[in-house]
Amino acid sequence: MKRRTVFFLSDRTGITAETLGLSLISQFEDVHFSQVTLPFIDSIEKAADATNRINQCVANQGDKPIVFSTILDPSIRKVLERSDAYYIDFFKTFLPGLETELKIPSANVTGRIHSAGDPHAYNTRIEAVNYALNYDDGARTSGYDSADVILVGVSRCGKTPTCLYLAMQFGIRAANYPLTEDDLHVTTLPKMLRPHRQKLFGLTIDAKRLHAIRSSRSPNSTYATLQQCEREVKAVEDLFHHENIPFLSSTNLSIEELATKLMVISGIERRLR
Amino acid sequence: MKRRTVFFLSDRTGITAETLGLSLISQFEDVHFSQVTLPFIDSIEKAADATNRINQCVANQGDKPIVFSTILDPSIRKVLERSDAYYIDFFKTFLPGLETELKIPSANVTGRIHSAGDPHAYNTRIEAVNYALNYDDGARTSGYDSADVILVGVSRCGKTPTCLYLAMQFGIRAANYPLTEDDLHVTTLPKMLRPHRQKLFGLTIDAKRLHAIRSSRSPNSTYATLQQCEREVKAVEDLFHHENIPFLSSTNLSIEELATKLMVISGIERRLR
Repeated sequence: MKRRTVFFLSDRTGITAETLGLSLISQFEDVHFSQVTLPFIDSIEKAADATNRINQCVANQGDKPIVFSTILDPSIRKVLERSDAYYIDFFKTFLPGLETELKIPSANVTGRIHSAGDPHAYNTRIEAVNYALNYDDGARTSGYDSADVILVGVSRCGKTPTCLYLAMQFGIRAANYPLTEDDLHVTTLPKMLRPHRQKLFGLTIDAKRLHAIRSSRSPNSTYATLQQCEREVKAVEDLFHHENIPFLSSTNLSIEELATKLMVISGIERRLR
Repeated sequence: MKRRTVFFLSDRTGITAETLGLSLISQFEDVHFSQVTLPFIDSIEKAADATNRINQCVANQGDKPIVFSTILDPSIRKVLERSDAYYIDFFKTFLPGLETELKIPSANVTGRIHSAGDPHAYNTRIEAVNYALNYDDGARTSGYDSADVILVGVSRCGKTPTCLYLAMQFGIRAANYPLTEDDLHVTTLPKMLRPHRQKLFGLTIDAKRLHAIRSSRSPNSTYATLQQCEREVKAVEDLFHHENIPFLSSTNLSIEELATKLMVISGIERRLR
């Protein structure tokens, strides 16, 4: 198998460089990539250190590393460009064309994409995270009026991380309510959910996968048996069909995909950009 | 003020297209951008619909929209390229060069960057989220042995969202413990934290900002007064200095920045890539 080292260079967190770089290298599955993130390269000295690390890598391994860079300061960029690497510079690639199209120079200022500078966005996000925590796992059901969405599904099907992601990424207020044995022996909704029917969104999961997840947490429990998982999954899917609740399966979707698909299907608008 | 519409087009979640596009347009602060994300464009029909929406925008507003696209299928791409827009095609820009450098064709397969396909990565992430929830706000202190980091700071300084972000993004097990009045009248660590000193990381915040945050949640409480906030912040910073605990201020940093800076300073390695 081919091997390459990949560097993600950034003057801030490195999140943008990683997101972009990972989506590109994921298209080369026959190469094994060792990944190194070097965030907060905001001085000539740090740039020189990074360049040394990259060149060291060429000296040790022979092959040029791939570098994905989101550095704005041209003087820092100049130092890094001297490294012996296959160098992809996201800002340099796209900013000049955008400047021409928009007929305006770019600001060349770092740290603009996260929400710290915008108290309203910050508060929206924190409030949404608090909401998700307060209304996790059916802990409270009295504040569903202010929910944007209420996720329902069996225990351990992925409700909590999906709610937290919706909160953190989009500022959406997402509650979740676990449908248990008691709720599932009838094909009608639990009473406290009925007034909020329009906000309900279902999650389901393949019974075998659920069995594996539950077994790793509660080995040898009745709760984790395949038979129990099959019964609950069948009952919950019957309920979703019967009550016309839109739903997704978490079996083959990441949390990001669940969250974004849920928004498309339900039409919920993000509160954060 | 200039206005432009921006489209983020994707065959999957749209997260990569948004990350790319937002980091670029954030460099043009004198333009007001209206943002539209069109995820899951995975058929010729959906591509034609998107193209219509983009062209409609030109018809209504005059100016060409800016399009950021992460679509892999060439036949879908071809439809979208017919739209009347300033079109930035992420994969088309970078994949050919990478193919040449790596001497290997790209897979051209969507949906590779999220962790659903990798049960180990999925479990690491979920376990970390569960850990953050179980060890939030000092709820339990008995399992700190398995923590990667324990955030300490006054109530409402940003500990919980930072822990959740560390868990979700990097699979790091982050607990948090609120330092209250009782802990702060002496400049030594609470007893249960002492054995875990090496794992402690402090968060602080500007007292005025803390006052604003607390006031919006608990108006007119003693807890929210500026005087109380100033006292707690001073005491907690004294403690960090006295005990040599590394710390950051959340006042001007986003959650992403706090999390990534904390990792650089503490040297904690991510468990997820």
